[in-house]
Amino acid sequence: MDIYEKIISMAKRRGLLYPSYEIYGGEAGFYDYGPIGILLKNNIENKWREFYVIGERFFEISTPVITPFDVLKASGHVDEFIDEIATCKKCKNVFKVEELKNEKCPVCGGEVEKGKMNLMFETYIGAIKKEKAFLRPETAQGIFVNFPSLYEFFRKKLPFGVVQIGKGFRNEVSPRQGVIRLREFSMAEAEIFFDPSNKKHPRFDEIKDEKLKLVDENDNEYEISVGEAVERNIIGNEALAYYMALTKKFLISIGIDEKRIRFRQHKKEELAHYANECWDAELCSERFGWVECVGIADRSAYDLKAHMKATGVDMRIFKKFDKPKKIRKKVIKPKVAEIGRKYREKAKKIFEAIKNIEIENEIDEIVLEIDGEKIELDKEYFEIEEVEETIAGEKLIPHVIEPSYGIDRIFYFVLEHNYKEIEKEGEKYVILSLPPEIAPIKAGVFPLVNKDGLPEIAREIEKELRENKIMAIYDDRGSIGRRYARMDEIGTPYCVTVDYQTKEDDTVTIRFRDTTEQIRLHRREVPNWIKEKCNL
Amino acid sequence: MDIYEKIISMAKRRGLLYPSYEIYGGEAGFYDYGPIGILLKNNIENKWREFYVIGERFFEISTPVITPFDVLKASGHVDEFIDEIATCKKCKNVFKVEELKNEKCPVCGGEVEKGKMNLMFETYIGAIKKEKAFLRPETAQGIFVNFPSLYEFFRKKLPFGVVQIGKGFRNEVSPRQGVIRLREFSMAEAEIFFDPSNKKHPRFDEIKDEKLKLVDENDNEYEISVGEAVERNIIGNEALAYYMALTKKFLISIGIDEKRIRFRQHKKEELAHYANECWDAELCSERFGWVECVGIADRSAYDLKAHMKATGVDMRIFKKFDKPKKIRKKVIKPKVAEIGRKYREKAKKIFEAIKNIEIENEIDEIVLEIDGEKIELDKEYFEIEEVEETIAGEKLIPHVIEPSYGIDRIFYFVLEHNYKEIEKEGEKYVILSLPPEIAPIKAGVFPLVNKDGLPEIAREIEKELRENKIMAIYDDRGSIGRRYARMDEIGTPYCVTVDYQTKEDDTVTIRFRDTTEQIRLHRREVPNWIKEKCNL
Repeated sequence: MDIYEKIISMAKRRGLLYPSYEIYGGEAGFYDYGPIGILLKNNIENKWREFYVIGERFFEISTPVITPFDVLKASGHVDEFIDEIATCKKCKNVFKVEELKNEKCPVCGGEVEKGKMNLMFETYIGAIKKEKAFLRPETAQGIFVNFPSLYEFFRKKLPFGVVQIGKGFRNEVSPRQGVIRLREFSMAEAEIFFDPSNKKHPRFDEIKDEKLKLVDENDNEYEISVGEAVERNIIGNEALAYYMALTKKFLISIGIDEKRIRFRQHKKEELAHYANECWDAELCSERFGWVECVGIADRSAYDLKAHMKATGVDMRIFKKFDKPKKIRKKVIKPKVAEIGRKYREKAKKIFEAIKNIEIENEIDEIVLEIDGEKIELDKEYFEIEEVEETIAGEKLIPHVIEPSYGIDRIFYFVLEHNYKEIEKEGEKYVILSLPPEIAPIKAGVFPLVNKDGLPEIAREIEKELRENKIMAIYDDRGSIGRRYARMDEIGTPYCVTVDYQTKEDDTVTIRFRDTTEQIRLHRREVPNWIKEKCNL
Repeated sequence: MDIYEKIISMAKRRGLLYPSYEIYGGEAGFYDYGPIGILLKNNIENKWREFYVIGERFFEISTPVITPFDVLKASGHVDEFIDEIATCKKCKNVFKVEELKNEKCPVCGGEVEKGKMNLMFETYIGAIKKEKAFLRPETAQGIFVNFPSLYEFFRKKLPFGVVQIGKGFRNEVSPRQGVIRLREFSMAEAEIFFDPSNKKHPRFDEIKDEKLKLVDENDNEYEISVGEAVERNIIGNEALAYYMALTKKFLISIGIDEKRIRFRQHKKEELAHYANECWDAELCSERFGWVECVGIADRSAYDLKAHMKATGVDMRIFKKFDKPKKIRKKVIKPKVAEIGRKYREKAKKIFEAIKNIEIENEIDEIVLEIDGEKIELDKEYFEIEEVEETIAGEKLIPHVIEPSYGIDRIFYFVLEHNYKEIEKEGEKYVILSLPPEIAPIKAGVFPLVNKDGLPEIAREIEKELRENKIMAIYDDRGSIGRRYARMDEIGTPYCVTVDYQTKEDDTVTIRFRDTTEQIRLHRREVPNWIKEKCNL
């Protein structure tokens, strides 16, 4: 068994992950979080909130997974979110083009027919399939379409950040890598809106000395400080670099091995349709090699511009200049008498329409539509004049920097990077060395023996821990050694044991997962002690 | 404006709720949680976890929203999760049958054609639409199909409970009630597996004196204690009654008005296809009247039986008797000599096959298939004998009790039941009297004036609060009165103000939302004081 198989087997046995719909033969590309798994996943997501919501002062929102066609047409996903596929003419199997062997079917060697496939799950809203829709491929669009309300909420000040944690969907052609390539996955995304002329980050100083391992677009790999990377223009701007450094901090805080994190820059040809620069945080697996787990992209004004074009809703912000500027601009001056004479009762509407026309250069003709009628005006009816105007600011479409986290992959890597196999009394023994903050269960509570009132005391302690919102489990089955082993395998950092001394002086033992060291504490101190250790 | 309109308008203005895809003209049946709203929603869900996961010792799991056809065919949803609809022949609008006016189109009065519509959103998994699937109508099925793994996880002991919090989908014909009737909604469901012969609840004593307001299946309304309701067989069993009482406790804890909670029993004809008894927790709205927000159902063995039938996977548990039972049963005794003489080398296989046949009554003939050959044995080749056998237990399909919560409706009712409009200096003034535990923002932090170093101190305090994982907001815009008003409107229980005295003695004022009373505290004490008040 390689590491992946070991982890998946442990995960199934201990209630971390179950293959979805297993009694129905299973469904590739789907995985369930089991009773222990979802505790770990929730802890990872809440830690992410601590970084991005509490720490960065961003706000979360939550929008539907069902997304109307128009939204994803505008965002480019209908046309660009596609895989090149190949269908075998002989065995009818479908593959990604890159899976072909010598341009032939990798299963039967048959001829293939190539085509394209959109990767979004389709559905319809309403009775009789009125309105086409998709399951969202990313949570980001739900944020972009709310930009006007959000900009209002943030009192019209840039930069501001909005995050979303939720499901994303990708109808993979043939997912074969278990939890690494899912059709339904959990993501945590932050969209941070910046003044396009100023992608400096207000807290850049706090992280500029952090070192990152980079693989740049020319495949050069080196370690460099964040500050230097920006200075030498390896990373495009401070904002992008700041969230790369923050990503590394977050990953380490949930137990990812620092030595197995690197940031790889997308080459021009692999950039998503919306991105103009992107760095992937890749984590290293014994089985899969380097795997993309977080993408940190500069989406520029791409999305807001697209939705503005599709809806006509103004997504621009008004940026005041430090001091008002004087500019010279060309304006159209209608010849009032001539227009009045020719167009009579329509003249007023024509003047109105002309007022709204903005021009940059000389023009010879104006074409208007007034009450459905096309009206062409040549130079007989207007003049171009240059005037001086004082303007207080300009309208701009904000740029977006986006760190986008694949929670399921990160979940897997937290397991792989903390999975330790040792030998104990000649047998294989597994310890999951999770940071206590992230551990699904914070404490096991055991009676040393199942008699003389010890189980009752242990149950009381477990209850007290739960009353303090601490996830504790009472266990009296099998030897103490077996109980420790079960807890070690799911990463429980502390085990509390009630023994005969407890009856005398109200103390219990606390045993540490990683060192097996034991201390004695008064039982009254246990809840706060665990809270502190687990940063609850 | 009625109460609903007031709340939706406030919710939009203050970032609690946004209509989905508004810049695209909006999409009926979908709503977004805004920056303040999602904080409140997350707090409600986490409080629910406190009750069901921490308090009841259930475990959460998380399964996909995309569900294969076979699963929902087996569960009955493909055939039973339908609405009777009517399509107008003239204007082509579609309605629910109950919306018709005198059997005619309620819009244009035209003739209608009646039909049925399945309420699940359809999609396909994989390339070239290979496999039909649905978006789940409830989270429960994801739990039922995992029963074998979960039973293992809970060490084969009943009762045990498994919960899921997540999205559910219902492709409503024509949703017209905003957040009350959504096509994509959040639900929190608990499935508790019981020994069918014993639906007593181990903790029934703790709640048996709680009073519930009931509307029974005969439309009689009265208040009664939980214990008496079970005794008089108004509520079918202790388990069902226990979760009704727990539901009431939960609702009160998040700020629902006790006087506006009742439990209404489903009449026979309104029971869902899987339920044999169901009580809805209904909450009272000034606008909508009594609205179902939680359903507490006895699903009996319906679902497990259905999946067992569809997959052949054994969903039964082995229930040991208190002491082994002696039973008399009929067995087939093959006549060894006669069979051996006739069937020779096949005889051994025939004996094996006969051993596996279970019979209840006398039979005259046995038909076997041995190596593809049909073999018929008449009474010449066997006898029926009655023997006594000792058995240790029996196989049973567990029964399920399910409290199922509609989170979005509960969210709305938390707003309605806590929305208070008063007058202040001649103007309308809104206070949202949320329990501090549930409030989206726990503290506003203000400098009294924007000079003399007060803003800097206030920012430090806000930072300290956030370092303690307390959701606090710094605000220095407008008068103190306006800042209080903004915080009162979103239910922030405490406002911390830094004034000139702070510079002298490090104390700040804390102002209470509901009483406007103020106290002074040392700034160092503030984080713990708020934590305690908000039960963090």
